[in-house]
Amino acid sequence: VSVTLPAFADVVAAAARIGPHIVRTPVMRSDAFDARSGRRVFFKCENLQTGGAFKFRGAMNVVLQLDPQRTPLVITHSSGNHGNALALAARARGFRAIVVVPRDSARPKIENIKAAGARLELCEPGLPARERRVAEILANEPAELVHPFDDERIIAGQGTAALELLDEAGPLDALVVPVGGGGLIAGSAIAATGVRPGIRVVGVEPEAGDDTRRSLAAGQRVTIPVPRTIADGQAAPIPGELTFSINRRLVDEIVLVTDDEIRAGLRFAVDRLKQVLEPSGATGLAALLAGRLRPAPARIGVIISGGNVGAARLAELLS
Amino acid sequence: VSVTLPAFADVVAAAARIGPHIVRTPVMRSDAFDARSGRRVFFKCENLQTGGAFKFRGAMNVVLQLDPQRTPLVITHSSGNHGNALALAARARGFRAIVVVPRDSARPKIENIKAAGARLELCEPGLPARERRVAEILANEPAELVHPFDDERIIAGQGTAALELLDEAGPLDALVVPVGGGGLIAGSAIAATGVRPGIRVVGVEPEAGDDTRRSLAAGQRVTIPVPRTIADGQAAPIPGELTFSINRRLVDEIVLVTDDEIRAGLRFAVDRLKQVLEPSGATGLAALLAGRLRPAPARIGVIISGGNVGAARLAELLS
Repeated sequence: VSVTLPAFADVVAAAARIGPHIVRTPVMRSDAFDARSGRRVFFKCENLQTGGAFKFRGAMNVVLQLDPQRTPLVITHSSGNHGNALALAARARGFRAIVVVPRDSARPKIENIKAAGARLELCEPGLPARERRVAEILANEPAELVHPFDDERIIAGQGTAALELLDEAGPLDALVVPVGGGGLIAGSAIAATGVRPGIRVVGVEPEAGDDTRRSLAAGQRVTIPVPRTIADGQAAPIPGELTFSINRRLVDEIVLVTDDEIRAGLRFAVDRLKQVLEPSGATGLAALLAGRLRPAPARIGVIISGGNVGAARLAELLS
Repeated sequence: VSVTLPAFADVVAAAARIGPHIVRTPVMRSDAFDARSGRRVFFKCENLQTGGAFKFRGAMNVVLQLDPQRTPLVITHSSGNHGNALALAARARGFRAIVVVPRDSARPKIENIKAAGARLELCEPGLPARERRVAEILANEPAELVHPFDDERIIAGQGTAALELLDEAGPLDALVVPVGGGGLIAGSAIAATGVRPGIRVVGVEPEAGDDTRRSLAAGQRVTIPVPRTIADGQAAPIPGELTFSINRRLVDEIVLVTDDEIRAGLRFAVDRLKQVLEPSGATGLAALLAGRLRPAPARIGVIISGGNVGAARLAELLS
């Protein structure tokens, strides 16, 4: 099967397309973090994106290319942030949205999707159950399926955060990006290597969910048991097809963080950045705090992917 | 006694002076907050200022007007944020700093002051004990006393946050500002009424610490027992002399919030703004959430004064 891989020009086009509709999120620094790591680190705060995560970029990039007269209904499956993002993007542009969500998703994420006006369809946990439920619905209702990561429009949209980061932070030696299905890092890698060939692109996975690390080592997509980790946005058991074909070419390495290291990252973000992150959003920061980048170059960009954790759950995680 | 009241021109001059040395903090909005309040609300996030609070503005405005050759030592007393700010500003400009801190201050604040390189002097809680300890030190070591709020240079510096907010948010009908010793709201009121005569300036105090509300009602400074509140940055028992003389002319009203309402504000900030606030920093937001502004005008600016709470304490407050 031949697929179209998104190119640097697609990320640039996505940035122009979605620019007026998204938040240009701030890039933060911390003297305390730099003193501790001996590096200059720039955090791209996608926890402050519309919907609380980078996912709104990709969703908006898809929706802005659809015609609501011709395709009035969009559908997706998502553990939360992508579903929320698609619901918000759909509403903003006059589409209806259906979001298939596993029953065990974090409650604030489910409530946000409802509040964003989408029709919720609950299913059992796990990627196969999600895809089955989507297929059942599509058999009865014609709709545009917007995959959470294995879609070139989504990947190009997610890459725009790295584009903004590189524009603002100046020359970076490395870019550190959380890896779930691989859409964020695929788009980020296309953007970063396009702006700055030779930049080191580092993915971060939770120790229990190292499907992309294993897949890169094996040279092909490897399936692992559904990971148990506090980083619920990164609980993918297998890399995407499209994302893996990009990441095997452009990602230099994958490093791993434990749940305790992620908690330390969340605490640091509270104490020093004054930012609320969800566990998946903190994995890049956690990897640097834990000294996983060896050798660590001088100037490092980190994508903070999201902040949808909820006050009650945050209190648990910080305790 | 005749005192010089700082004027709008002093705030403008302070903004030019400190501009290159401070963070121009972001102004945030929340669709969820606006939907709930029916108003358009702009949050000026001074939790993201250097040192985690607005206090760095005033401290920098003082230090930049001193000559380290002539006055190598600065001293202050502070429950935390002002001390930290003065220590950071002093270090940045080549001064030594002594900070007198009550023993019961929040631990992260004390640790930050130490980390910022100041000499710490602990004293008993309460304003009289703090002032006594400063006088003792000054008797032995010549130093420039930088009062946390009753200093025209400090007041002018604190006003620069409101100046930036009004510049960025456009015309505002009201400005909501936390009140401790009264320096932030005095500077903010000078700035806001200078830019936009007729703007409504609303102060917020914790219910247990309503010394400024009582003083305005009485037409003179009233002393209350040392307030017990989670808003430790607002535990002043009496308004400042200079700040009160400004605030009685320029502040339209003071509203009160309970500790539970402040907690609800902290939760909202975590859930929706993804921001970590300290209790005092959340009182403006809490007042709006609790419907304390009546009638509430259409466009409201809120100063979020700080975020130095620490992960462990935040977990307690959110639980």
